[in-house]
Amino acid sequence: MRVGLDVGGTKIDAVAVDPSGDIRGRLRRPTGWGDDAVVESIVTAVTALADESGFPLSDVGSVGIGIPGLVDAEAGRVDHAVNLGVESLDLAVRAEHALGVPFRVENDVKAAALGAAVLSGVAGSMAYLNLGTGVAAGIVIDGRIWRGSRGTAGEVGHLSVDPRGRLCGCGQHGCVETFCGGGALAKAWGRPGALPIRDIFDAADAGDPLALALRDDLYHGAAAAVRVLVLSADVETVVIGGGLTALGARLENGIRAALHAGAEASPFMRSLRLDERIELLPAGSPAAAFGAALVGASITEKEIVPHG
Amino acid sequence: MRVGLDVGGTKIDAVAVDPSGDIRGRLRRPTGWGDDAVVESIVTAVTALADESGFPLSDVGSVGIGIPGLVDAEAGRVDHAVNLGVESLDLAVRAEHALGVPFRVENDVKAAALGAAVLSGVAGSMAYLNLGTGVAAGIVIDGRIWRGSRGTAGEVGHLSVDPRGRLCGCGQHGCVETFCGGGALAKAWGRPGALPIRDIFDAADAGDPLALALRDDLYHGAAAAVRVLVLSADVETVVIGGGLTALGARLENGIRAALHAGAEASPFMRSLRLDERIELLPAGSPAAAFGAALVGASITEKEIVPHG
Repeated sequence: MRVGLDVGGTKIDAVAVDPSGDIRGRLRRPTGWGDDAVVESIVTAVTALADESGFPLSDVGSVGIGIPGLVDAEAGRVDHAVNLGVESLDLAVRAEHALGVPFRVENDVKAAALGAAVLSGVAGSMAYLNLGTGVAAGIVIDGRIWRGSRGTAGEVGHLSVDPRGRLCGCGQHGCVETFCGGGALAKAWGRPGALPIRDIFDAADAGDPLALALRDDLYHGAAAAVRVLVLSADVETVVIGGGLTALGARLENGIRAALHAGAEASPFMRSLRLDERIELLPAGSPAAAFGAALVGASITEKEIVPHG
Repeated sequence: MRVGLDVGGTKIDAVAVDPSGDIRGRLRRPTGWGDDAVVESIVTAVTALADESGFPLSDVGSVGIGIPGLVDAEAGRVDHAVNLGVESLDLAVRAEHALGVPFRVENDVKAAALGAAVLSGVAGSMAYLNLGTGVAAGIVIDGRIWRGSRGTAGEVGHLSVDPRGRLCGCGQHGCVETFCGGGALAKAWGRPGALPIRDIFDAADAGDPLALALRDDLYHGAAAAVRVLVLSADVETVVIGGGLTALGARLENGIRAALHAGAEASPFMRSLRLDERIELLPAGSPAAAFGAALVGASITEKEIVPHG
């Protein structure tokens, strides 16, 4: 059995994948804060997953972890995972020591990209655009994660597409993330609520001017990210995932319409048919944890991860 | 001997490359207009190059052509080469028929990217950013042209980076090309002169406000293109070529300064050290024709060109 964990700021999504590629178990557990608690919550998630799915821990052949932050996949180390209270953690070594199972660590968006490529059945080249609190993308070519030269491939969230746009947390103005990142939109909305982006959409449906403007920003920012990914890396398909996919068809139709409208004046852009080249993952998709399991399974074939 | 031709709107740049990779001859000839004249000027360029460089035509093992427009490299066909008066031309077949030598055809910017990668000695991944009348980029990974899924990899010229920017020839507003394309800048300058971009730089040095604004636009547009290439494809180095490199150090220093200033507010962008990752090809570099020769030399190893 291959286990994959998507370690997020609040919860761990864990799946067990059997040798034929089917998901045989899945659970969610809270994530700990700080080095020790993160390692402990990962170990607990693996043992609980085995328990609840009804297979012994000795059946676990590998564990792959997708985790936010700067990941050194070769060393199994993660740095600057600020949402987890982790500055620098030798995660693979420590988890292996605790469980006696080989671990592999990958950046969460890159792992999710690999999982999305397989689950969505997209052949050839694709980008996975993650619309969550922040915005980032991963690129998968012929079934392999495109890592680039320094690990910044797909960091489209911090490209500015409007010099007069909102100030980004990164310090620049008008970054893609200021348009379509859940955190930036919630901040611009500024009203209390557990699901601010859903509140924005509902208020927009009711005609609220600020909500309408922010919803448009979301559509346009995501469309800009899709254009960047196609016009630089020339991926065939852009699969959209992340927390904002809970909005479902409303989100998908809005991004499609923004791509269509943006191409109207340009025969070149029209010829790319970008609005037909996006796909939304279903809400709650296990793509990220599934991709992490694939990353873990590559322990014996390390060439699957590095590229370029 | 391997011959490479960079076929431009007004001239053909031709080089002969010997088996050790050294350039053994180079000449420039005017380009014809329309299908027949384009083929004829290519044939003439090859025979003249052999003549002037002192080797018999029978020594030519292959000819590679870099040409603007939509190129089908497998078929050796070029479509929509509007600056050459060509709508659709079976260039490889017709040139082979005339000269009895195998021809291979590639998009000019992609061929130049390959040549720039070899001539600049950049290892790993690089993007070649061509600043000419228009703006486009080619990506080379591990010595291979990155073609992407539909041949639009590196078409960064038509990404909008300012929704209130100038109208682009493509129909969109604020495209990268409206900021740093020679054609767009000359049009915005609007004064007569054989070398409008040089005029803009000279006038900017003398304090002309429009020239200062346009020169800043050029720096900022090129910086935006560099950011897109690094934050999507994550290339290690961006090599800048094209007609605008005639401006030399003035151009290079300006782009470097724009990258440096743009990163100042952002620790993330500062960490990328983009200003240290650009290189300018020397003015008059044979990179495009040299790259075309490499493309031609790949006739027996066709896998060098398609990728992804």
